[in-house]
Amino acid sequence: MTQIMNNLADSIKAMGDQAREAALELSVLDTERKNDLLFALADLIETRKDVIQAANAIDLERAKANGISGALLDRLTLTDSRVKGMAQGVRDVANLPDPVGEVIEVHQPENGLDIQKVRVPMGVIGIIYESRPNVTIDCAALCLKSGNAAILRGGSEAFESNSCLAGIIGEALDANGLSPATVQLIPTTDRSALNTLLQMHETVNCIIPRGGEKLIEFVTQNSTVPVIKHYKGVCSIYVHEDADLELAARIVVNAKCDRPGVCNAIENLFIHEKVAEDFLPEVARTLEEEGVELRVDGETAQAILDQARIDYIPATEDDFYEEFLDLILSIRVVPHLLDGVAAINKYGSAHSDAIITADQDAAESFMNRVDSATVYWNASTRFTDGNQFGFGAEIGISTDRLHARGPMGIKELCTYKFKIYGQGQIRFQ
Amino acid sequence: MTQIMNNLADSIKAMGDQAREAALELSVLDTERKNDLLFALADLIETRKDVIQAANAIDLERAKANGISGALLDRLTLTDSRVKGMAQGVRDVANLPDPVGEVIEVHQPENGLDIQKVRVPMGVIGIIYESRPNVTIDCAALCLKSGNAAILRGGSEAFESNSCLAGIIGEALDANGLSPATVQLIPTTDRSALNTLLQMHETVNCIIPRGGEKLIEFVTQNSTVPVIKHYKGVCSIYVHEDADLELAARIVVNAKCDRPGVCNAIENLFIHEKVAEDFLPEVARTLEEEGVELRVDGETAQAILDQARIDYIPATEDDFYEEFLDLILSIRVVPHLLDGVAAINKYGSAHSDAIITADQDAAESFMNRVDSATVYWNASTRFTDGNQFGFGAEIGISTDRLHARGPMGIKELCTYKFKIYGQGQIRFQ
Repeated sequence: MTQIMNNLADSIKAMGDQAREAALELSVLDTERKNDLLFALADLIETRKDVIQAANAIDLERAKANGISGALLDRLTLTDSRVKGMAQGVRDVANLPDPVGEVIEVHQPENGLDIQKVRVPMGVIGIIYESRPNVTIDCAALCLKSGNAAILRGGSEAFESNSCLAGIIGEALDANGLSPATVQLIPTTDRSALNTLLQMHETVNCIIPRGGEKLIEFVTQNSTVPVIKHYKGVCSIYVHEDADLELAARIVVNAKCDRPGVCNAIENLFIHEKVAEDFLPEVARTLEEEGVELRVDGETAQAILDQARIDYIPATEDDFYEEFLDLILSIRVVPHLLDGVAAINKYGSAHSDAIITADQDAAESFMNRVDSATVYWNASTRFTDGNQFGFGAEIGISTDRLHARGPMGIKELCTYKFKIYGQGQIRFQ
Repeated sequence: MTQIMNNLADSIKAMGDQAREAALELSVLDTERKNDLLFALADLIETRKDVIQAANAIDLERAKANGISGALLDRLTLTDSRVKGMAQGVRDVANLPDPVGEVIEVHQPENGLDIQKVRVPMGVIGIIYESRPNVTIDCAALCLKSGNAAILRGGSEAFESNSCLAGIIGEALDANGLSPATVQLIPTTDRSALNTLLQMHETVNCIIPRGGEKLIEFVTQNSTVPVIKHYKGVCSIYVHEDADLELAARIVVNAKCDRPGVCNAIENLFIHEKVAEDFLPEVARTLEEEGVELRVDGETAQAILDQARIDYIPATEDDFYEEFLDLILSIRVVPHLLDGVAAINKYGSAHSDAIITADQDAAESFMNRVDSATVYWNASTRFTDGNQFGFGAEIGISTDRLHARGPMGIKELCTYKFKIYGQGQIRFQ
């Protein structure tokens, strides 16, 4: 058993060595050749549709046998239009401008050196994800365009689909004269392989975990490779005393109800006490119609709803920390903008938060003081998304502060190097 | 005992909570007030010179009693000019432009949102360092200017000096109406306090370890807080077949001998075989005069030195991985530019590497293919330094790829947030 474990660890480590070699080659590949590869991959995905769906069918049967339910089963399914969507996604990435080689800054200090800060690939990126097999293709395309080798570790429920897609990526790489080690899928769902990957800081430059809270926590606890977390979204809206209340209600309902299961949906609503009586019954009624369960904190707010005969559940403090990902909203009335700010900084996950107000000073104060990746004035938090920001496809939404914060596109998959042009300069202490 | 340990852990955690609160206040402080604070701190350092040197004397006596030797003892000593230097360093940081609030990018996608990517402080930064007590002041000043709260953990050998300096920082903070929790020194040299700090990812946003290999490895293995490593420098020079050999010799000697104990000094020299016979005896003779021990790999190079009657030690492969930090240089002759590149990518620590050549294509190929933070053409690697780059004071030199790579100034102590200005936008799936 230990022998097998050692062999597995060795073979995962060997994947890292090969990925690093492949990354060095890929890092100097020109834009045209990267794009040729991506277009070839897109075509191959369409050509191999039947093979992909046959592999997917095995995953689906196993999932059904394991009693996996509707929404998860749906996420796992590669329909005709999803296969087409994967291919189109790869073409979209090919059409993005190449981030590699861009001169970000130029410095010309007194010593006469010409210092150019140039965007370059990070190297080898490990991506850990769950459930949807199309993530395999999305991540591969984003890594390839940004010049990075990738080691992918998908979820066990999509193992056959992911293996098939990885095979197709390897075929496209090979046909375009690149090492198949440029994109590798960890060929087992064994947890110990993940543990090995997380310790490979000599060959892997960055780990991106995408998935549930437990996965992210496991990676954070066990990785010696730098991690960019894609963690939860406990987002809030603060309705200021000078808000246009109709606009506020429209935004709150959109931010809660449009897609309650995603990270940029709101979980908390804070309302200034001066507008609570006017605003709360109106918005609560609409939310009720949309099927939202209200968890309401404090006597003031509860009394307002009692009088309006609107149902609610008294909120506990824990509710405000919760990422419901469901039609549930915690509500509290606060006496001051700074109380709203403090509540968001305390309970929120620093993802996306909005203020609704007609007062510019209040808006600026809120946006400066709320310690979140994305802060909105008079707009729905639902816009936190690489495509909506105009960045093109995203690898995810970083909830970290180092390197990338918020929507993360191909530029954020790069690092930089300093290229320094001298004329024989030497330095004395 | 466990009770005491728990109390210590609790009190370190409480430092984190207080630092986070202080960071939120500091993050919105305007430039003028930050600068006032820094100038006040600089003055106070000069006013308190005697107290600082008295505390320092205790550390020095203890160090002598522990048999600590010349170079280390020198690093520990706060002479008159070093106290003056600390104060001047703080003023220099005050005079740097404020990185906070700078609009880095503007995006205006089709949805009509006005998206501003704005530089903001990271939050709470933990800095772990050794030996030189002036680092306490340097780090505090850089964190304050960049709007970050700091938790400092200095080495046990400078404990009294660091405590005294932290007290002076607290006095300046208090006199300027800021929480003393804005800059805190961990008040014990107990290792378990460091362990606690490294797990405080809920309040600490970034850990910067500066010090020896063992410290960095300990932090990497044990931190759940994102880390920006300041690791070793195994730097190399490659002398190309088209190099101006006189210029090459001057740069090699400077990069090795100017300050052999620092991270941007070279440890390895690779020479193209076509110029080995002309170049090697010349440079070896000068290096010998400077007292450099040569570790030479391969028959070609050894034969050349034998014929020139220059002493050397045959190199082992391990020598090329070694950060000597001393007057020792590993040398190898290679048949091709790409062999030099491969050797640097294999043995080096991706810190600073140079090519000496008159051929621009060779230089570009080298700079693009060598996977290091800083790559030079015809200049000494010794220039890798925030001040030499014109960035002003540096917190250190990052050997990581995430967030900051190479010299790290106050800009690199910041993250960014997206401030998004809407007019009531809502989104439908």
